[in-house]
Formats: sequence, structure tokens, C-alpha cells
Amino acid sequence: MGTALFKEKMNQACEILKEFHVDCWVTFVRETQVNGDPVLPFLVDANLTWHSALIISSTGRTIAIVGEYDKKSVEDIGAYDEVIGYVQGIKSHFTDTMRSLNPTSIAINYSEGSEICDGLSYGMYLTLHSYLAELGYEHRLLSAEKIISALRQRKTNGEISNIREAIRATEQIFRTASDFIGPGRTEKEIADFMKKEVEAAHLQLAWEARICPGVFTGPDTAEAHYMPTDRKVAPGHILNMDFGVKVNGYCADLQRTFYIRKKGEEKAPADVATGFETLIHAIESSRQALKPGVYGHEIDRVAREIVIAAGYDEFPHGLGHQVGRFAHDGTALLGPPWEKYANKPFEPVEKGMVFTLEPRLIIPERGIATVEEIVVVTNQGADYLSTPQKELFLI
Amino acid sequence: MGTALFKEKMNQACEILKEFHVDCWVTFVRETQVNGDPVLPFLVDANLTWHSALIISSTGRTIAIVGEYDKKSVEDIGAYDEVIGYVQGIKSHFTDTMRSLNPTSIAINYSEGSEICDGLSYGMYLTLHSYLAELGYEHRLLSAEKIISALRQRKTNGEISNIREAIRATEQIFRTASDFIGPGRTEKEIADFMKKEVEAAHLQLAWEARICPGVFTGPDTAEAHYMPTDRKVAPGHILNMDFGVKVNGYCADLQRTFYIRKKGEEKAPADVATGFETLIHAIESSRQALKPGVYGHEIDRVAREIVIAAGYDEFPHGLGHQVGRFAHDGTALLGPPWEKYANKPFEPVEKGMVFTLEPRLIIPERGIATVEEIVVVTNQGADYLSTPQKELFLI
Repeated sequence: MGTALFKEKMNQACEILKEFHVDCWVTFVRETQVNGDPVLPFLVDANLTWHSALIISSTGRTIAIVGEYDKKSVEDIGAYDEVIGYVQGIKSHFTDTMRSLNPTSIAINYSEGSEICDGLSYGMYLTLHSYLAELGYEHRLLSAEKIISALRQRKTNGEISNIREAIRATEQIFRTASDFIGPGRTEKEIADFMKKEVEAAHLQLAWEARICPGVFTGPDTAEAHYMPTDRKVAPGHILNMDFGVKVNGYCADLQRTFYIRKKGEEKAPADVATGFETLIHAIESSRQALKPGVYGHEIDRVAREIVIAAGYDEFPHGLGHQVGRFAHDGTALLGPPWEKYANKPFEPVEKGMVFTLEPRLIIPERGIATVEEIVVVTNQGADYLSTPQKELFLI
Repeated sequence: MGTALFKEKMNQACEILKEFHVDCWVTFVRETQVNGDPVLPFLVDANLTWHSALIISSTGRTIAIVGEYDKKSVEDIGAYDEVIGYVQGIKSHFTDTMRSLNPTSIAINYSEGSEICDGLSYGMYLTLHSYLAELGYEHRLLSAEKIISALRQRKTNGEISNIREAIRATEQIFRTASDFIGPGRTEKEIADFMKKEVEAAHLQLAWEARICPGVFTGPDTAEAHYMPTDRKVAPGHILNMDFGVKVNGYCADLQRTFYIRKKGEEKAPADVATGFETLIHAIESSRQALKPGVYGHEIDRVAREIVIAAGYDEFPHGLGHQVGRFAHDGTALLGPPWEKYANKPFEPVEKGMVFTLEPRLIIPERGIATVEEIVVVTNQGADYLSTPQKELFLI
């Protein structure tokens, strides 16, 4: 992340603190190579070794307290008013700083409902609590969930432009792969081909290499989250891929569906075409319903009902998640009201959120059809950031 | 990690539970791509998406409860007796399992003193606590610090052999770099050269690419943890590098010191030679003192006193940390009794621990001399795993 983007997001954080009437936000971490906090990439661009506190105040004051060896890297960001380095221990530096700020509310990174807001470990919470208890400030603690969610979900133009670039690069590799896919190729071979394209373009994968891309062909394939196998592409089957690259730290996450024609077939048979069109209809209808102020579970229902009405089993996951520095980013989710999604489907949709739309359905004896697009929420609706797949890719 | 190593470490975990009289150990995570737990690589080899519980019982029973999409990947490890997949939520599956185990003590991953044992986030702790409170089990919770520390520090032969391979590969790249280093080369050029060697050998870096290798030349260089700059190698200066690669998930972490000869110099001048010999003497003396049952702060003091007695400033960090899946691994530390190290220097040394020994000292107008070796604690002492640097590398 460039210095400009750090400043832009840290200024945004100050505004968000004011909006939610929170005085101070503290990110408290150590050995971040081993045990990170998902919000760190917005606050520093290096790992921190010893106990470190990154403090943003609603007055606009920003202070970093870090081990001496990490001081210069944090100063280089140019986004902190003050960078304090220490050799033996953080405690006195931290308590002195908090005493001087004397905030009436102190937001810290925990959340039961949202993993991106839950970077504070329980051990570090106990340490932080004991430091603040010495000042009598421990009752001023509250969850930074709303602050971190807003910071991540309200994408700046710079962030959207990075996501757009990641999408373009991902689409380009999908196109190149279309010429490689053919009967007899294995899922593994296709995945390896795409990984080489990523390397050649000096890009990074958007998630773990084991399943990026995910390649699923034919009716007996794993459903999702499983690595490519030696299963071979065969005529009459469908193949779907789940893939994304990262540009300047921002991710794309797209799925595309291919049909492998039998000899003499010009187009996909009716059962395959119907399944694909159902998906496209579900995506486009949910995009049209998406706008600021609606709730994720309402949008999920639009797509889910189209799939069910067409006679398919409903998909066993949410319609769409946010995308950002992680492929699965953000708190608000376009998902059903299931326990595992906690309150995420009940968070209101806001302008600047970037969502996937990814219904799926099984076409018996053919395979799994799934398309995943990316949209950005605007003032009044939602626009595609990806180039939507309108037709099956025919092989 | 191969299936064999998973089984070996999970069996070891059962033995450790018995040794510490703990009934059950629960690792509780979600979206591990976003928010991981440093112990996960011993328990699964894929990311887990939804709330997941990895349960090891002292009776030897092992149970994984994961989202349906992650089930097959976890089953593939072949180390769990039971893998339960769910679609909507983990709660009932988890409480049913815990009720059937009815453990009198439940270890969970938190620790104020040791980051490798502190993978449970505060939000996830609150969720876990509420689930167990419904069973009336919440008072059975305790820290898994001793269990995770023992599991990571008692290296099996398979683990030591991976570290040994990583060390050999790291030493090879240091040798190749010796021929590249010369007056006029910048720190950045040297780092880029080494990174290309790592890529060519299809290896991974042992820590973040920004500072792996760390390259520090001359008297004005950053002390540590700072990225390579455009500063040029010059005659009469010393250069030190901090570097390691990873093999099968296990790290090396070594430092080497080079002297850049002036025209006509055959060997290093006396001030440089004395500094280097002080380091070697400190390393060898601390290795000779290292054995099961001693405390880290005692070993740190051996090296620290040699450096101070020779008239140099003491180094502002511990003498040595453990090495394993992370370059900075383990709880027990060969370090001074400073606040930031918490109880780590007071943990007894055990057989099977793998430590670095890395004193450093400043040689005025020359640069920073530092050598880092790796040793393994044996029944009665400690043996080098690295090939110790006995002489300055002369350029």
C-alpha cells in the first residue's frame, strides 16, 4: 500500500471514530508474523515483533508504540504523528500515552460476529485489560467492530481501482485458460497452467495456492474448497473454476462455468443451458435489488428463490461476500439468516461496499454450474466491476 | 506436512495432555485465511472457513467439527477419528461432542507470555465460553500454553531433519552470494540476487520478503528489521546478512558477517577481527553452557557478559529464540529478564529444542558484526545444526 493510501484510510478512520462517537481506537499486537490482526495492512506495511500499540484518536492524533527495531519501518509510512520505540517493555510507554489521551471510550479489535474485526487475541486482551485497569480505564473498553467494518467496507476510489485491476487480470487469465481446457486435461493440469500464468504476470494469488484456482469438472467433483484432482475433463460435462489474483494488496474472486461439447454439438444441451441461465437470472436480479439501506438477507433471498423456483436445490452458502484485501472481506454479507453467519446478513448495505454474487446449482450428470461476479454499491444501486459472464464458455 | 508428521505430532499432543493431566485440548477458529492460529499447521493443512473446532482428548480420541465444504480436506489428513461437517452452525455439534467427552479440564489457546500459544481471538473466546457455559463447563477452561509449548519445542526427528535441510539450503545461498558481493553493490542488489537464488531452487523464504534477507552494510546502516537500501558496499566496511529459507514448512534463520578488504589488505584489520572473534567466543561459550534443565536467562548472560567484558555495548535483544515452523518459534527463550520477554527466559530448557545463538556488536566506523548459528539441545548438551562460521568471509 502506498503512503497516500495509508493516509487516506487513517484519515477515514478518524472520521469514522467521530461518526460513532468513539474517542480512541487501539490495535494491540505482537509478533505479527506469527499472530497477526486482519486490520494491520491498513495501519502498517511491515511485521511488528514485540508488543505494539497503534493508536488513532478521534482528534486526529495518531501514535505508534513499537519495539525499537521496528521504529524506522513505521516512521517510513509517514502516517503517524508520533512513533515511540522501546527496548525493554511497552507498558510504561503505553500507559503514559493513554493517560495523556484520557479517552472516555477505547475501541479494541474483538467481535463474535465478524472475523475481520476480531484480531485481538485473548492473551493480548488480558494484558491490555491489566494495563488499563491500573489507570482505572478498563470500563472504557468496547468493540471496534463498527469502526473496522466501516473502514473496510467504505472503499475509496483508490481501493476500487485496485480491485478493478485485479478483476481485469483475473479475467485475462480465465480467457487464456479457455484455450488450454479440453477433453482429457485434468483439473490439476488446468490449475497448474493458470498458476504459471499468474507467475508470468508477476501477480499474487488472491487466496491459498492449494485451491486458487479451484477447478471442478463433471458430476462427481468435490463441491468447493477442495484442491484440483486427476479427474479429467470429458465431453458432456460442465467445468467450473473459482479463481482470483491480487493487485496492490486487493483481491478479485470470480467463478466461471464452461461446457465441454460432445462431438457434433454446436451449443450446450437444454438442461445445461437452463441451469446456466437460471444462475445469470439470479445474479442479475439480485444486483438490481442491491442498493444502500437494504439488508443482505433480502438480497440473498432474491437469488435463492429464483434457483429454488427453477427446481434446483438451494445453494448451501451465502449469495455473496465482500471483497477487499481479503477475498472474503467485510462484515455485512448477502447471506441467509443461518447461525454460522451471525448478524452479518442483518447489517445494512452501504455505498462503497464491494460484493460478490455467486449462486450455484447442480446439473445432474453434468456437474456444478456456478458463476461469481463482483459489484460495487453506488448511491442508488449496484454496478458490475467484473465483465459479467452472459454465455457459457463452450469448449 | 505429510500425513505421517501430522499423526506423529497429534500422538505427541495426546501424550503431552496425559503428562500435564489435561483431559481435552480445543483449537477454535474461523476464516483462518483472515485470522489464523499459529498452532494450525500441526492440526490441518488447509484453511478452515466457518467456525471450526479441532479437539484432541487425552484418551487419544480426535474429533474435527468443520463447515461441510472443508470436511473432505480435513478427512484427507487421516489423523482424525471423526470429522463432522455442518451447514448452518457449529453450536449443537460442538456442545453435543463436549457433553459426550465430559472433560474435567479443557485447554484453549491463549497466553499472555507466549504468542505461539495465543491463537484464540477474544471474540472466539467469548463464543466458546458461552457454548460451554450452557453445559456448565466454563470453569473447566485453562490455558493450553504448556501443551502447545511442549508440542512445538519437542522436535521429532522428522522435524529436525526438515530444519537441517533448510539450514543446508540457506548456507548454500550464502556461499553463492559471497561471489556476488563486492564494492559498489547495493544492499538491494544483494537481496534481489539472493531472492532469485531462492526462486531458482524452488524454496520459500523463512520470513517476510521485505526483510529476508536483511542486508546491512557499513557504519550507517539500520540495526535490524529494516529493508535493504541503496547503500553501497565499500572497502573497509563490514556487511552482515540475516537470512533463511523454509523446507517442508520448517525454517532456517542464520546471520553471517563479511569484511570488504581495502586494496592491499590480505585479512581484516585488528578491530574487525577482535569484534568477530568476540562473537564467535560468545556463541561457542553459550552453546557449551546450554543443556536440559538450565534457564534461558542464564545462557543469555554467558554471551552477554563476554560481549560486555570485551568493551562493546550489550546487544538490545535476546541471545537466541527457538526455530521451527516459524523463524521465531517456541516459548522458552535465551533472553534477558526484560519485560517484553515476559516469562520466556524462565522456562526450563528441554531436549529437542532448537535455538538460534545470535549475539551482535557494533564495530565503530566499520558496521555491525553479527553471527547467528542454530543448535539443537541433546540429552547432555547442545549440538550445532548449522555449520558454524569460524572465520570472517573476506570479500
